[in-house]
Amino acid sequence: MRVDLCRTILFAALIGFGGAALPARAQSADPLPSWNESPVKQSIIDFVTRVTAEGGPDYVAPQDRIATFDNDGTLWVEQPLYTSFIFILDRVKAVSNQHPDWKTKEPFKSALDGNTKKLLTYGEKGAVELITATHAGMTTVEFNDIISNWLKTARQPRFKRPYTELTYKPMIELLDYLRANDFKTFIVSGGGVEFMRAYTEQCYGIPPWHVVGSSGKTQFRMWDASPTLVKLPDLLFFDDGPGKAEGINHYIGRQPIFAFGNSIGDKEMLEWTANCSGLCFMGLVHHTDAVREYAYGPNSDVGTFPDSLLEQANAQGWSVVNMKNDWKVIFSWEKPNP
Amino acid sequence: MRVDLCRTILFAALIGFGGAALPARAQSADPLPSWNESPVKQSIIDFVTRVTAEGGPDYVAPQDRIATFDNDGTLWVEQPLYTSFIFILDRVKAVSNQHPDWKTKEPFKSALDGNTKKLLTYGEKGAVELITATHAGMTTVEFNDIISNWLKTARQPRFKRPYTELTYKPMIELLDYLRANDFKTFIVSGGGVEFMRAYTEQCYGIPPWHVVGSSGKTQFRMWDASPTLVKLPDLLFFDDGPGKAEGINHYIGRQPIFAFGNSIGDKEMLEWTANCSGLCFMGLVHHTDAVREYAYGPNSDVGTFPDSLLEQANAQGWSVVNMKNDWKVIFSWEKPNP
Repeated sequence: MRVDLCRTILFAALIGFGGAALPARAQSADPLPSWNESPVKQSIIDFVTRVTAEGGPDYVAPQDRIATFDNDGTLWVEQPLYTSFIFILDRVKAVSNQHPDWKTKEPFKSALDGNTKKLLTYGEKGAVELITATHAGMTTVEFNDIISNWLKTARQPRFKRPYTELTYKPMIELLDYLRANDFKTFIVSGGGVEFMRAYTEQCYGIPPWHVVGSSGKTQFRMWDASPTLVKLPDLLFFDDGPGKAEGINHYIGRQPIFAFGNSIGDKEMLEWTANCSGLCFMGLVHHTDAVREYAYGPNSDVGTFPDSLLEQANAQGWSVVNMKNDWKVIFSWEKPNP
Repeated sequence: MRVDLCRTILFAALIGFGGAALPARAQSADPLPSWNESPVKQSIIDFVTRVTAEGGPDYVAPQDRIATFDNDGTLWVEQPLYTSFIFILDRVKAVSNQHPDWKTKEPFKSALDGNTKKLLTYGEKGAVELITATHAGMTTVEFNDIISNWLKTARQPRFKRPYTELTYKPMIELLDYLRANDFKTFIVSGGGVEFMRAYTEQCYGIPPWHVVGSSGKTQFRMWDASPTLVKLPDLLFFDDGPGKAEGINHYIGRQPIFAFGNSIGDKEMLEWTANCSGLCFMGLVHHTDAVREYAYGPNSDVGTFPDSLLEQANAQGWSVVNMKNDWKVIFSWEKPNP
């Protein structure tokens, strides 16, 4: 997989998930060099300093330093459409010759027509229908091969790069910084869990078992005396909105003290995190940079950031990243402004 | 919680889940001192030595060193009845005054009568019925408090000790030994996930997010402006038999290379592990010591170990621990034979 950005992740992060990923001396340098000096950067560093200060009033033991991150729009690009959704649309096209009725049957028709505006009006139900129709009836090994091949060949339409090169450098620094301070970093995202697990370790230093996502059921079967897992057309878990708080409890089993999202689908994850017993940090990425990335908010069908969420963030002291102002670079391959 | 055994676990194991839990020098000593010299002990040490030998033909990178363990009968006592099942029966009794019809309605009647023989004939369906009737309608926080209190006060009928003191010392040494060699250790067990998470970190050094178990659905609700998760009377995941292979894929997302169980419910987990691409280790604990613990096998309703499983283990080169012969001590509080 050609993922230049991923190479910047220290190998240490891959083998030391639970422990310190960076040598202690690295902490004296700026841990977030791609972040401009800003209140958000300062509040992150203040938070980490306080919860790791042994003997201090806000100290949190390492095993309780749980940090959860949304993926689409928080760790990588989600415009013009969630990447895992583009993958699903490509799957619909790939198998459509076996389903002639899809030409006239929604939501398949809109998927085949590339009418994403209309497709998004079918909401969660439509997405689940597309997923169950295209992701089932094969083994997990076959499905993982399809994902890996797709990630190698697919290109994001505007940037003409593999999606795995469209991760946000400042957020990867943040993940590294937290792990260097003995945080356990998890992804809690609405995307398909197999899809994310295909690249999260390489790109974010986050192993498969730290990835919570939406998923379908599987069934164990012996196949020519070999055990296989066959994917079934049934939803097991939908990890968005309230599902993110439920998923944190179900898959992680411990209260986070740090969470980052970027849209209305992250509201309940942030509320759940804000309910922690000591000091906690809630952050939102606001997409404000149409030149380097995208600018969108209340009126976007993808990554909707309504005014009510901004009001809630301001009222409750959640940090909001202004991407244009707060991030020196967005992508690793981008030249920083002089 | 009075858990003497748990104190023997190094604090390092609690904070260094992903990394080395023991200092390197510890490895020169016998890593499994509670194990008698036996073919099983030797095969474990051979396996770990080979997969960690950099440059060797069987080398496995640290991020791929996944080890999965059953819990009941593999890491702690499961006789005369699975501990999580005893907890469920106590819950049935605790709330039975709100359900007068249970006096004549199965499986509740057998649960209230303490007729476990009959109760076990209702199988998985009966267990799920008891669980959903007693574990729902409260918040996750309330439920966790009930579990913690139960673990503090309940005593195992034969040993008259808290259940958390009935973990197997040789297996805890094995968990430590694997983690010292950069294995990630997971529990994959049919027990209720919340029940296990209440003590696995303290007793085994295994954090909540490395515990795969059976679980019910929850629902996020705002309650007096506070977010809560309410437990629903619906099964989300049943982690036994084929469910263990499905659960490994769903929750861990990577193929294990090491697995340990003790009964027919672990068959598919071991088959799934045996399907790994390189060297892998499959182990079973056979309960053969009626004096120090229990002796049971094909005819036991709890932890059934049929002859067919023993034959499969022998035919496929899986290691079988003979508890009586292979373990110097079983419990930490037990005096070893001179």
